[in-house]
Amino acid sequence: MSELRIRAKELDGADELAGKRAEFVLDTASDGASGTAGVYLDGNSLGALPAAVPARVADVVARQWGELRIRSWTESGWWTAPERIGDRIAPLVGAAAGQIVVGDSTSVNVFKAVVGAVRLTRLADPGRDEIVVDATTFPTDGYIAESAARMTGCTLRPVTPDRVPGVLGERTAAVLLNHVDYRSGRLHDLPALTAAVHAAGARVVWDLCHSAGALPVGLDGHGVDLAVGCTYKYLNGGPGSPAYLYVREELQDRFDSPLPGWNSHAEPFGMRPEYEPAPGALRGRVGTPDILSMLALEAALDVWDGVSVEQVRAKSLALTDFFLECVAAYVPDGRVECLTPLAHGERGSQIALRCPDAGDVMRRLIGRGVVGDFRHPDVLRFGFTPLYLGFADVERAARVLAEVLTADGD
Amino acid sequence: MSELRIRAKELDGADELAGKRAEFVLDTASDGASGTAGVYLDGNSLGALPAAVPARVADVVARQWGELRIRSWTESGWWTAPERIGDRIAPLVGAAAGQIVVGDSTSVNVFKAVVGAVRLTRLADPGRDEIVVDATTFPTDGYIAESAARMTGCTLRPVTPDRVPGVLGERTAAVLLNHVDYRSGRLHDLPALTAAVHAAGARVVWDLCHSAGALPVGLDGHGVDLAVGCTYKYLNGGPGSPAYLYVREELQDRFDSPLPGWNSHAEPFGMRPEYEPAPGALRGRVGTPDILSMLALEAALDVWDGVSVEQVRAKSLALTDFFLECVAAYVPDGRVECLTPLAHGERGSQIALRCPDAGDVMRRLIGRGVVGDFRHPDVLRFGFTPLYLGFADVERAARVLAEVLTADGD
Repeated sequence: MSELRIRAKELDGADELAGKRAEFVLDTASDGASGTAGVYLDGNSLGALPAAVPARVADVVARQWGELRIRSWTESGWWTAPERIGDRIAPLVGAAAGQIVVGDSTSVNVFKAVVGAVRLTRLADPGRDEIVVDATTFPTDGYIAESAARMTGCTLRPVTPDRVPGVLGERTAAVLLNHVDYRSGRLHDLPALTAAVHAAGARVVWDLCHSAGALPVGLDGHGVDLAVGCTYKYLNGGPGSPAYLYVREELQDRFDSPLPGWNSHAEPFGMRPEYEPAPGALRGRVGTPDILSMLALEAALDVWDGVSVEQVRAKSLALTDFFLECVAAYVPDGRVECLTPLAHGERGSQIALRCPDAGDVMRRLIGRGVVGDFRHPDVLRFGFTPLYLGFADVERAARVLAEVLTADGD
Repeated sequence: MSELRIRAKELDGADELAGKRAEFVLDTASDGASGTAGVYLDGNSLGALPAAVPARVADVVARQWGELRIRSWTESGWWTAPERIGDRIAPLVGAAAGQIVVGDSTSVNVFKAVVGAVRLTRLADPGRDEIVVDATTFPTDGYIAESAARMTGCTLRPVTPDRVPGVLGERTAAVLLNHVDYRSGRLHDLPALTAAVHAAGARVVWDLCHSAGALPVGLDGHGVDLAVGCTYKYLNGGPGSPAYLYVREELQDRFDSPLPGWNSHAEPFGMRPEYEPAPGALRGRVGTPDILSMLALEAALDVWDGVSVEQVRAKSLALTDFFLECVAAYVPDGRVECLTPLAHGERGSQIALRCPDAGDVMRRLIGRGVVGDFRHPDVLRFGFTPLYLGFADVERAARVLAEVLTADGD
């Protein structure tokens, strides 16, 4: 057994989160080529299935919907699910209860948050007319920010995150940033950038899609104004599970949503023609929440019982460190280039490797049971979910990657 | 056996849709008071569970998510579900394929549609600045229309539907109307109102929440511009199942969504910073669709196999006629007042009865197994879903209602 395989075994033996793996459904079948189980490194796109979810969803469908039907809006807690599940997510992103609601897609929540941020800034300074956005952002944030700018009479200013502090000024109304870059896996400096936006008199919106559930966020501690995130990556909520919106408590009574649906009314069943926004986080709700997806997410969050984000972060860094070490040992020099920063303080929970034939390489990797994803035009993206990945998985993934990269094609 | 019970039995015997009842999960348990099964008259709020749904959802969770994971976006058809399921809904609302996408809540789709309608009108006539909305609408439509007005520089003009033709004019940009009123059950004249809006040079958005699946809509035939609807009422998609957006084919290349998410990009996996809207109906998509709720809906739509909306409409009118006849026979004169029009051409698939103690009456009805709902302050609302209700159910509901209304309280 190679030295790295022995190391992997030792690291797995000392892993205090190792027991969590049993709470997920993972491959037990062998893959064709090597007789070993697959390695799922795409939890940063769609988290694996938590084992508690199927029975919970079956109960929601058969009993709550099938038997109780309409009564479940109250008796099964459907109506209050968006804020109840928001409070389950809150400790994972460093937020006290009462500041997060779950519902709608990330894109829709970006719209609420960016428009809301512009309006908050303008309460004090009505003339501000610029929205700054991360130019390297996952595209939907940029598209939605552009629409928000158009509909609030602002100009959109896309800049790379390192240039953000330099462009902030008296015109800045809102700034939309990613905590971790979806492509490179770079972790941005949330505390410093938040402080810089505040110093300029503006409001910041953080997109936590690639950080929530993988590393500490500290929304309350760092004074973040608004944040959004998806729940199907490191929170394992299932395909297209609803996103969430964080509105800092002290801003809630001034948060002015562009999507004031009946679910955010102070008295939703009063059916009043005049809109009166509810107090608190639920002002971020819109229409009827999608209960099946939402309650699957609630069940999925049970895997966090007894786990701290700090533990997860420590293991995440150990996993990505070890992956890079294995890649360096196995893959010929110069065959791939690492896009992800080596400094822990600048790294999320993924490793992005650039190679010119990335599309073909990823297809062959997946054929060998090592599942990451490909990002156009030349990036291999590997996500590391500490709750269900071990060091032996990581070593095997790097080994198969090296075999694929050195083969002539198969 | 009373004459009405005999009639009910005869009507059930002649009902060509009677066999459809077996495709739903309905009460078999007896209720405490009379030993008879419950009657579910709240399908206009949450449709009953189609029997095919639990196994389908279980497969989506355990196999598609649990085993195939990320591969399901292509291999299980997740990515194309919004337009595929839209095409399943299309014939139910009189639309050719390629004009409907499923996703997001009704409220969010109202926002897309109303802003889109204003922008379409302004392509020809940029100065138009008024949005007309049904003043008696389900509240969320009014709240969202107000936000759309604010964000497009329009004034909102709420008027009752009968006054709509009189207020249309050179300032009208968009009109948002309900096909069936959520409270009274009144069916509005979609062909005439659509023609009136067009004659004024504006665009119309129809909310089909309370008509789709209950009666013919004829979107294409009547030249409707845009429409939205939910899928959890007469389409039985489950709690909070995603809504849909119809954009008439000839308008699609000019439809300019206020929520341009990455799912509506011409090349979504190109990850390009510039937004380029996709052609066709999928321009109405936004972010990642909620797959669990969406595929539950897809399974639920199987109950429409071999059924025409015209058949459903004929039975719906027969059910509501018979309910009114039974109420007239059983309930003392003057105890309730019917808010729903008696003319078939003005009636949806519900009956709304006004009585001063409606809240208390509905609580007691539900206690007796007859489930309708209460709308503030004095309305008893009963929805009639022809696919799973029979005439004996209707007779029993009216009989229990009469007992509750004539009792001193129980």
